[in-house]
Amino acid sequence: MKIRVYYEDTDAGGIVYHTNYIKYCERARSEHFFSRGMMPGEGDRYGFVVRKIHADFLGSAVLGDMLKIKTSIIDAKKSSITLLQEVYKEETKLFGMEVLLVYVEAGKPHRIPEYLLIILQELNDHPPGYSS
Amino acid sequence: MKIRVYYEDTDAGGIVYHTNYIKYCERARSEHFFSRGMMPGEGDRYGFVVRKIHADFLGSAVLGDMLKIKTSIIDAKKSSITLLQEVYKEETKLFGMEVLLVYVEAGKPHRIPEYLLIILQELNDHPPGYSS
Amino acid sequence: MKIRVYYEDTDAGGIVYHTNYIKYCERARSEHFFSRGMMPGEGDRYGFVVRKIHADFLGSAVLGDMLKIKTSIIDAKKSSITLLQEVYKEETKLFGMEVLLVYVEAGKPHRIPEYLLIILQELNDHPPGYSS
Amino acid sequence: MKIRVYYEDTDAGGIVYHTNYIKYCERARSEHFFSRGMMPGEGDRYGFVVRKIHADFLGSAVLGDMLKIKTSIIDAKKSSITLLQEVYKEETKLFGMEVLLVYVEAGKPHRIPEYLLIILQELNDHPPGYSS
Repeated sequence: MKIRVYYEDTDAGGIVYHTNYIKYCERARSEHFFSRGMMPGEGDRYGFVVRKIHADFLGSAVLGDMLKIKTSIIDAKKSSITLLQEVYKEETKLFGMEVLLVYVEAGKPHRIPEYLLIILQELNDHPPGYSS
Repeated sequence: MKIRVYYEDTDAGGIVYHTNYIKYCERARSEHFFSRGMMPGEGDRYGFVVRKIHADFLGSAVLGDMLKIKTSIIDAKKSSITLLQEVYKEETKLFGMEVLLVYVEAGKPHRIPEYLLIILQELNDHPPGYSS
Repeated sequence: MKIRVYYEDTDAGGIVYHTNYIKYCERARSEHFFSRGMMPGEGDRYGFVVRKIHADFLGSAVLGDMLKIKTSIIDAKKSSITLLQEVYKEETKLFGMEVLLVYVEAGKPHRIPEYLLIILQELNDHPPGYSS
Repeated sequence: MKIRVYYEDTDAGGIVYHTNYIKYCERARSEHFFSRGMMPGEGDRYGFVVRKIHADFLGSAVLGDMLKIKTSIIDAKKSSITLLQEVYKEETKLFGMEVLLVYVEAGKPHRIPEYLLIILQELNDHPPGYSS
């Protein structure tokens, strides 16, 4: 997943506004599903929700930069999953976060369906250094 | 309606990103209804949609500025309404736009209900220079 | 230029928030320069600024949609240029706008340099239907 | 600090997009300084930067909600400070985060100036339950 930094992503400090790294990571998670043809239906009452984020801001991207997002699973439970997501500019890591996602149906935590686990597992099936 | 410019509103040029003035105007339209207790219901199939915008960018706001949004009706038809919305920094006009809003029910243009017209009319009931 | 619609782009109405089409058009303009290696320098005092936008909102995109942005020059003057930018979902036009950009140096309108005109001209060098 | 939820803040799930709670907290930090007349200067080479965020997403806000942001200092070191920031809808806590801010001058961590410490200290000078 590659993301270009546009004007809308930057702030008056001349760098990417801090919460936008977290948005980039959500884009990467969504793209993993969208690119496999798994589109959300209108009025869906199930899906993953963000429950916890631990984020480290290590460096700054600027206007025009091309960033890479790497995503891997670091823990999986019955109804939740923890991902490590990192943002790189070439070989330099600018941002890293662990995000705990809970699978919900009708507003309540629910066992993650098998077909979603299989798709998520593909996040880890890449050779090291591959950007998903 | 007063709006403070935060980091998220600015871009690497050091000024407010151009589309944000249009967002501020939408905030002002929503606030006009929200502040009267008219909250949108989940799954509402009716409301105003933006059909046309003619916008002039006249000046720039910077981080920390406090802006005023002025809104007035300049035309009203059976199922649509045209508003003039302007953004001021003190006495200086930074932005102006005419926005054509169409009232829709179930996806189709529909006569604007009387109670909404009455609320919209209050936009024009202010003395000159008043910021709604 | 292709753009995917992510959660961040949508609003509670289930569709893309109206000002985001205008942001997509700005991304397309920037990408035209960035992809040719023309990166903005820190503290640059020259560039194009948005002076006027006439926009028509014709349809709605939803989460997961892949959109195409088409850009062409419809008028060019000594220190300004008018572009037509359109957003398509497959063959359906969802949005169109004319945007007047003024070239400024040190805060004042200035004759557009030849090398920028050449790059801009490439916007029109595509066969009909090509999305830049 | 009170913040209204507008269309731009929500996503197709009908609720506030997750990173926006983190943006609201940044608004609250900036407002604490702006409201005391401490405006950032153009080209400033000093200020606080976000280094770490630990965030818990506990509930969801919807369009039209009026939220309160509470901010207090939980740790202060020579060149950094840790704040607890919480977002409430009436008495219900929807979001909480600890954010580590580092004070930098010319790109490097630097002892926090006394006058900034005094202003920050005012965050804790409110009676319990007060929303700064």
